[in-house]
Amino acid sequence: MGELSGGVPLLILDLLGVAVFAISGALAATRARMDVFGVAVLGMITALGGGVVRDVLLGITPPSTLRQWPYLLVAGLAALAATLLAPAAKALPSTTGVLRRTFLVADALGLALFATTGTATGLAAGAPTVTACLVGVISGIGGGMARDVLLRQVPMVLHREVYALPAVLGAATVAGGMRLGWPATPVLLASAALVAGLRLLAIWRNWDAPRPRR
Amino acid sequence: MGELSGGVPLLILDLLGVAVFAISGALAATRARMDVFGVAVLGMITALGGGVVRDVLLGITPPSTLRQWPYLLVAGLAALAATLLAPAAKALPSTTGVLRRTFLVADALGLALFATTGTATGLAAGAPTVTACLVGVISGIGGGMARDVLLRQVPMVLHREVYALPAVLGAATVAGGMRLGWPATPVLLASAALVAGLRLLAIWRNWDAPRPRR
Amino acid sequence: MGELSGGVPLLILDLLGVAVFAISGALAATRARMDVFGVAVLGMITALGGGVVRDVLLGITPPSTLRQWPYLLVAGLAALAATLLAPAAKALPSTTGVLRRTFLVADALGLALFATTGTATGLAAGAPTVTACLVGVISGIGGGMARDVLLRQVPMVLHREVYALPAVLGAATVAGGMRLGWPATPVLLASAALVAGLRLLAIWRNWDAPRPRR
Repeated sequence: MGELSGGVPLLILDLLGVAVFAISGALAATRARMDVFGVAVLGMITALGGGVVRDVLLGITPPSTLRQWPYLLVAGLAALAATLLAPAAKALPSTTGVLRRTFLVADALGLALFATTGTATGLAAGAPTVTACLVGVISGIGGGMARDVLLRQVPMVLHREVYALPAVLGAATVAGGMRLGWPATPVLLASAALVAGLRLLAIWRNWDAPRPRR
Repeated sequence: MGELSGGVPLLILDLLGVAVFAISGALAATRARMDVFGVAVLGMITALGGGVVRDVLLGITPPSTLRQWPYLLVAGLAALAATLLAPAAKALPSTTGVLRRTFLVADALGLALFATTGTATGLAAGAPTVTACLVGVISGIGGGMARDVLLRQVPMVLHREVYALPAVLGAATVAGGMRLGWPATPVLLASAALVAGLRLLAIWRNWDAPRPRR
Repeated sequence: MGELSGGVPLLILDLLGVAVFAISGALAATRARMDVFGVAVLGMITALGGGVVRDVLLGITPPSTLRQWPYLLVAGLAALAATLLAPAAKALPSTTGVLRRTFLVADALGLALFATTGTATGLAAGAPTVTACLVGVISGIGGGMARDVLLRQVPMVLHREVYALPAVLGAATVAGGMRLGWPATPVLLASAALVAGLRLLAIWRNWDAPRPRR
């Protein structure tokens, strides 16, 4: 715990990110009609992927995501829960809409939490401000990118208009706030809310629905 | 050599894993109708991928797979052999069955060898038990995952029911045996045999053949 | 800068590689009909990917590509320029030919520059000769591989006949020249010219056009 400058609040936000990304991975696998093993494996990869890349980029090896039991417990439980719920999800009368929307919300929350906690982790590891922001953004988009590539889909970050930008904004507000010496917890919460708010607004207003190409 | 706690037996098992993964990559490229260069490159990537990821996660840089000549020699020779045999393989009367089965067996052996030697390497590098197991599993599934993604296929670990589970079991028996102070070589051999046996049984009994989806 | 043994010339060549890879990524996204955000993101990933992998393999964390402002500035500017030009590119009367050719040339230059500067960076980081060459080759093909996988295409290195081989040759001439104590700048320039020349020749002579498969 001591290695996270934000202490317990940072750890809790990071674990929340792990949980929602596990759900997003499990839902994506469910939507792709994978069986229970595929759902669990993709949930774990999506949950842990962003944190592993973050730590490898910062030289924290083995990655804390693979080393600290809270991460593994949360990822495992979330993947298990999603796996147990998958049959029910598949049996929904009109699964597409509900599953897709839940998936998008889980992904938005994961992006928001990982982009902000990733930036804070980078600053705590002594990285320069811009580097910490980039590591945060990569951490935020990394797990979902792996999830989409493994399902042979073009990653959301490449075809959603309001995706990378909120992550960059959130990373910048975390770095700005912490460099100004503001208390970590409110800075992290406000920044994560900013990212999630922008993404959810984009989903709600259909800003990034696929449009017909001429 | 001194950096591998299992010494020569661990190195030999690791090299066997490199060789069979090189063959699996070369066969996958052959089945995808790639030319001789694609076969060689994909063989090398599959052979070295899992070990590179393992070492990066453990902070062993540059990865020993890219640094120790036995790895490069074995990967190169296996890729070369597979490349030379590719035209004959392509000319087989009913290529699909034979190539597919040989590919699955090579992949099963690679999974078994890398998951177990990866766990042992993690323990030797001082990683906690669970971390070493996870690194082993990632090392076992990593090379094949890269191979499948590069060929635009859904990785086997996501749509085979008996794939990640045997790797997890094998990693656990390696970690258990070595923590109990049992001699490394028989522990590694028995664990690798367990993983390979389960995978081969699954292939033989068609446990994980694609089934019709409703 | 002091960490690059080749000093300023190595940095300049590396930045050129970043710029041309950013262009190749942006052009690939444009050809795939992505919107402006996808073009910018894919340009950045392609530009920075090879260098990030190189530094992670060499244990240089955080990667200098994410830490030194010239890299970020060049990648950002190149992605911005490509993004601004994308609408014009899309509107070209017969876009396919021109875009495709420009894309291939940018990719060839990026491969040449990254394979050679990557090898020099590996040697400067104290890696053994063969390891430095492999890191250089991986650095050269890595960014383009990520670009192609994210666009759900089979990476060029797997289906172009004259691709990995020139990179290996260029890495070997860099390593050979520098081990012989020759001055770094001419060795790097000549090696990069060799790789780019072979690739461009292959493109011009259509050596690696897709051929009908029997």
